[in-house]
Amino acid sequence: MDTYTAIVIGSGSGGLVVAVGLAGLGKRVMLVERDQMGGDCTNTGCIPSKSLLHLSSGVAADQQADSTSILATVRKQRDALRHHEEEEFGTMAGIDLRYGNAQLVAAGRVRVTPADGPAWEAEADHIVICTGSQARRLPLPGLPEDKLLTNHELFEMTTAPASLAIVGGGAIGLEMATAFNRLGTAVTIVEAADRLIPTTLPAVHHTIAPVLTQQGIAIHTGVFAESWDPATRELVMTGGGRVSAERVLQAIGRIPNSADIGLERVGVETNKAGRIVIDDRGRTSVKGIWAAGDVTDRGGTTHDAEAWARRIFASIFVSVVPLGDVPVRTGAVFTDPEIATIGVQEDEPAEHIIRITKPMAAEDRSFTDEVDTGFVTVDIDRFSGQTLGATIVGPRAGELIGMFGLAMRNDLTLHDWYGSVFPYPSYTRVLQSVVDEWVRFRLTDLRDNPGQFAIGKAKSVVSGAQESIRNLL
Amino acid sequence: MDTYTAIVIGSGSGGLVVAVGLAGLGKRVMLVERDQMGGDCTNTGCIPSKSLLHLSSGVAADQQADSTSILATVRKQRDALRHHEEEEFGTMAGIDLRYGNAQLVAAGRVRVTPADGPAWEAEADHIVICTGSQARRLPLPGLPEDKLLTNHELFEMTTAPASLAIVGGGAIGLEMATAFNRLGTAVTIVEAADRLIPTTLPAVHHTIAPVLTQQGIAIHTGVFAESWDPATRELVMTGGGRVSAERVLQAIGRIPNSADIGLERVGVETNKAGRIVIDDRGRTSVKGIWAAGDVTDRGGTTHDAEAWARRIFASIFVSVVPLGDVPVRTGAVFTDPEIATIGVQEDEPAEHIIRITKPMAAEDRSFTDEVDTGFVTVDIDRFSGQTLGATIVGPRAGELIGMFGLAMRNDLTLHDWYGSVFPYPSYTRVLQSVVDEWVRFRLTDLRDNPGQFAIGKAKSVVSGAQESIRNLL
Repeated sequence: MDTYTAIVIGSGSGGLVVAVGLAGLGKRVMLVERDQMGGDCTNTGCIPSKSLLHLSSGVAADQQADSTSILATVRKQRDALRHHEEEEFGTMAGIDLRYGNAQLVAAGRVRVTPADGPAWEAEADHIVICTGSQARRLPLPGLPEDKLLTNHELFEMTTAPASLAIVGGGAIGLEMATAFNRLGTAVTIVEAADRLIPTTLPAVHHTIAPVLTQQGIAIHTGVFAESWDPATRELVMTGGGRVSAERVLQAIGRIPNSADIGLERVGVETNKAGRIVIDDRGRTSVKGIWAAGDVTDRGGTTHDAEAWARRIFASIFVSVVPLGDVPVRTGAVFTDPEIATIGVQEDEPAEHIIRITKPMAAEDRSFTDEVDTGFVTVDIDRFSGQTLGATIVGPRAGELIGMFGLAMRNDLTLHDWYGSVFPYPSYTRVLQSVVDEWVRFRLTDLRDNPGQFAIGKAKSVVSGAQESIRNLL
Repeated sequence: MDTYTAIVIGSGSGGLVVAVGLAGLGKRVMLVERDQMGGDCTNTGCIPSKSLLHLSSGVAADQQADSTSILATVRKQRDALRHHEEEEFGTMAGIDLRYGNAQLVAAGRVRVTPADGPAWEAEADHIVICTGSQARRLPLPGLPEDKLLTNHELFEMTTAPASLAIVGGGAIGLEMATAFNRLGTAVTIVEAADRLIPTTLPAVHHTIAPVLTQQGIAIHTGVFAESWDPATRELVMTGGGRVSAERVLQAIGRIPNSADIGLERVGVETNKAGRIVIDDRGRTSVKGIWAAGDVTDRGGTTHDAEAWARRIFASIFVSVVPLGDVPVRTGAVFTDPEIATIGVQEDEPAEHIIRITKPMAAEDRSFTDEVDTGFVTVDIDRFSGQTLGATIVGPRAGELIGMFGLAMRNDLTLHDWYGSVFPYPSYTRVLQSVVDEWVRFRLTDLRDNPGQFAIGKAKSVVSGAQESIRNLL
């Protein structure tokens, strides 16, 4: 029986980081993929959706989009990237790439069942589960199977439908509404919550909804998609509203791919949602079995999966390596304008939080670029001055949020931002205006509440000293 | 005679920061402007140039641009911003805005000569010189005055010329070449150095020159504009080459506005180029006289002027306030793609520098957005792991460089970046690939050179401890 340092199940972003990392350090890794190299991100997620957003953005408002050609290019691009990944990683020294269904047989042992051929088993010191997730499908009474799309089928359409109902106003729903609207499809979003992107601040909805409406997208919030009327080809919503649609895209969340991989057999703990429970290093409840990405309870975006996979890779290589705080949650939605978030997203900030909001339009670059919408909101711990969360809606928000990724990783206070120089006139400077306001607040707070300020500041200094000690490692 | 806390000469970005800052804290400030509120940035620099870049970017390749309408909009936008600034700052409590020529009479005393009316004098504890600079004009034998443009006359043209020779391949030259080329003008750049943007890495030229050429811009490097042939209406270059041009834009550097403000009378030291010499707080050689921005020897962009003005404002308010390191030099050129730099820009890195370069095209977002050019280069101190300089050519480079602004201000090492999470697929992630390579190098270096590594690391820890102590303040 073949023996490896690690068997990695799933070749999405998480699995690749672990496999490539270990192989690069001379370890022998088996990488098992049951479908396509690259996982959802490469094949049915980020990559084709971003290609489609890019290609559709080139369609002038007064033009008829050639959606057949655009969708073909999207698939061609995606396939090219997958082939590139297959070539780069599939043939990498140290990586033994196998296609088939992998199941845990025991701690340290995996059975692989290829599509054609007999099953076989392999052993490893470590097993890393990165099987990802799949789109949740809810039956819609009356709707023929071929009219229901998820992200899995969406990019296989050979031409854009004349009309599309999108059930779910989250990241996927908003991005695909944007893209198909540009292709000339009549798009309607149906969101059950009372606002779009309900996991973010209400101001995100209040900013983005009018923009999407202006772009020509119809939006219904606070209603469920209830059934399909085959006679009229309409989606029927709770309350009786109807949406005429050629196709229905469901983008209502993800189900972890944890059902048929033998978790129960070896005793890997999952939560109620079927997600694998992991600790701060990415360890499951069974020694030697690790998990990362959307099959776990710790965040399932591509960058989440990678960040957790890095921790697993490092921990397998040196079991006591210090890893620092767990990766902060962040994300971007590539609508126009972009939406980006990091950290806590509470409708109302807690008492010790100072919330500062600046309109994007107040920035000089917004003025020259005729940007009249968007904002940045930052939640700051009153005493430590550290950022706890941030929300940005505006041009390049997906890049601007990275500043907070760096700052929060390093426990920088907003005062630590003061004195940083950003080119004029970049959009980044809207963050400087937040900092300016923070410094003004801080000076006032210091004057009016010297005792509380001193305690908060002391905490901050202790944290800084801890950081210095951590740096010794 | 009126007496103020400060007299600020010049209402550009530097002067406004000092005046608004002090007035906001209850001080009385006289702000003297000899021309237009907002200085070069608002009136003849960043704002109209960025407006023009934005408006011209909306012109489709196969369209005939309405340059008359676009240039009129540029002026309208610019005037609107200036009126806004006049309204916001000119009427602010504590700011006494006066128009006229200001001259130093003695330390603490200024004479103002309005365009219409008698001169008068005022006194202040502090005088802050923010008079900026003007475009350098070199006579071009044979060229009629009305054919020679600088940034001062450029935006006053009522329609784009059929052809334009741009002398100077720096930031202004490249941005205006980009914009006027989009408006249908036949643009030729003539740069005396052997490459465009010669203050940056050679790779910047090698990346941007083919892109500009592809966009339709002609480029000559290593030649001087020598004279004008009125018979053929051609610019004659050294070596005999000729460029047919309706107008000539000179963008060959700046001359400080230091000549007629009485510096010699009160003994303010200037360097050979006529720039006021300042110390780390922005103090000139005369007590109570400060200077910031392009009239000084410490950097003259809008963000430089602001950063130094913040130091002056803070120092006037609390003379012993700790300011931290002097502002790092950074900048962005808003061509397509953008160019951005920070810190040292040495053709060949010094021995203790590790230089890491990543092509922008290797990033997944570049793949989906069909970006096939650009790069990021980062110079890292081998032992401390801190960034000493960075250069980015690519989409959104003007925002990405801000990450280094934050990191360098806070002495973050590239290892401090590791573990930061940036949304996928943002362009920011190209920086993560630099960090990944750094971490691989560092692990190897640690293994192969443990002694040197320990010394370097110790330095880094001492610096971290100093930072913590600084935070106490």
